[in-house]
Amino acid sequence: MLKTREYLAQFIRDRRTVLTIGLDSDPVKIPSALDGDLLTFNKEIIDATHDLCISYKLNFAFYESLGSKGWDILEKTIQLIPGTHLIIADAKRGDIGNTSEMYARAVYDTLGCDAITVSPYMGSDSVKPFYREGKWVIILALTSNEGSSDFQQQELRSGKKLYAEVMETSSKWGSADNTMYVLGATHPAEIKTIRDKYPEHFFLVPGIGAQGGDLEAICNAGMNHQGGLLINASRSILYAGNGSDFAEKGRAEAIKLNESILKYLKVD
Amino acid sequence: MLKTREYLAQFIRDRRTVLTIGLDSDPVKIPSALDGDLLTFNKEIIDATHDLCISYKLNFAFYESLGSKGWDILEKTIQLIPGTHLIIADAKRGDIGNTSEMYARAVYDTLGCDAITVSPYMGSDSVKPFYREGKWVIILALTSNEGSSDFQQQELRSGKKLYAEVMETSSKWGSADNTMYVLGATHPAEIKTIRDKYPEHFFLVPGIGAQGGDLEAICNAGMNHQGGLLINASRSILYAGNGSDFAEKGRAEAIKLNESILKYLKVD
Repeated sequence: MLKTREYLAQFIRDRRTVLTIGLDSDPVKIPSALDGDLLTFNKEIIDATHDLCISYKLNFAFYESLGSKGWDILEKTIQLIPGTHLIIADAKRGDIGNTSEMYARAVYDTLGCDAITVSPYMGSDSVKPFYREGKWVIILALTSNEGSSDFQQQELRSGKKLYAEVMETSSKWGSADNTMYVLGATHPAEIKTIRDKYPEHFFLVPGIGAQGGDLEAICNAGMNHQGGLLINASRSILYAGNGSDFAEKGRAEAIKLNESILKYLKVD
Repeated sequence: MLKTREYLAQFIRDRRTVLTIGLDSDPVKIPSALDGDLLTFNKEIIDATHDLCISYKLNFAFYESLGSKGWDILEKTIQLIPGTHLIIADAKRGDIGNTSEMYARAVYDTLGCDAITVSPYMGSDSVKPFYREGKWVIILALTSNEGSSDFQQQELRSGKKLYAEVMETSSKWGSADNTMYVLGATHPAEIKTIRDKYPEHFFLVPGIGAQGGDLEAICNAGMNHQGGLLINASRSILYAGNGSDFAEKGRAEAIKLNESILKYLKVD
């Protein structure tokens, strides 16, 4: 099923949330009773939360840390996600054209993801191979971490900040129908300004919870008539509990987040 | 064995080359007689070339396009590389701190690489987890592709270009003993200027051959008293032949490149 913008908007309307769950599943942090079995952990989390979210985001680093076995778990986890949900490869890829094309094959054809996060540093020909019918390119703009001030917030000679230049330039490579931006939840004021300039684009917003972003401030600043945000929560849901009821506790945390989100969700 | 700067300099002195071979091995492009067997292809290339180069660079995208099976080939290929050679994970990673730490575990602990290419867009806390004793962080500065003009060459308010700012800021995160920069072979004039400013750093230089960079111009512009460059060749060596003598033809191409390199190599 192609996850078009209209599809996402309708799914958000139906689910009454913009919650995305980040499967940053760490063998060291999952309940010890699972004995490091990430696939079972992911299955229980997905089973307990899929009616409460619109998307799952796979953080590739956590799987790659286990090598080919981790990639096998990644493949099998993706198979467990309902076909209704947007599946995001949070892989932050980007390279010269023939190499980005190989990364695109990996995430779209081999893994079956619907979207990928991409670093813009290498420019247009490093990002364009990720555009495919029905797929989403999610470009890093202003990230949630402290280091976002090192380069992303540098002012260019034109007076624009680098992240604003990245958005302006890259918004011409695609459209609001196939391009999203990563905007960290630690920057609500900037998200408000960006929303005014990009009324239709979806933004993927990590950084609430463990990283300190304010969920309500972000919803208030960034939502549009279709929802327009994918609010990601990872650690706060995955590690809400440490016992055999971890999935139930994760579910409770997702319900709590959705209550906050719903206060601001004004969809068409 | 730790691949310190002194070690690399001595290895370059012994081998009389700075050649790095990029294992961008593509199932579609390898000789059809191999029936897509990338591991055998890599083994034959490594066996035929290891006395002619100082390093191998693994382009992760080509392996990831095959999923977990590709990661398995990646793991097994790395085991085939002699312990004398610098093993570069050309993975262009970079994420928030806890995630970059996971990528570092993947490439250093699980795979056993000595170095990784890293995208600087997310700033200091996205790069610092890759610093480890005896390992090399290879930061994208000015890449070989056309898209390098989109952002890397944008002028900042300070008058510096973004790539120069990236180098100046990131050179303080480490030193010439643990930091290298990616500088594309398509930019010889800039490499000359950069060498004057960074006399001791090693630069990883892709982009000769298929991408059109001029090998001799680069050697002339960028070499220092230790060699100071890792000149990467991928497609020109891997696909020098299409028959059963592909490895021999790749070897001949490496010998030809080394003849050009040697004209400029003035090591201590």
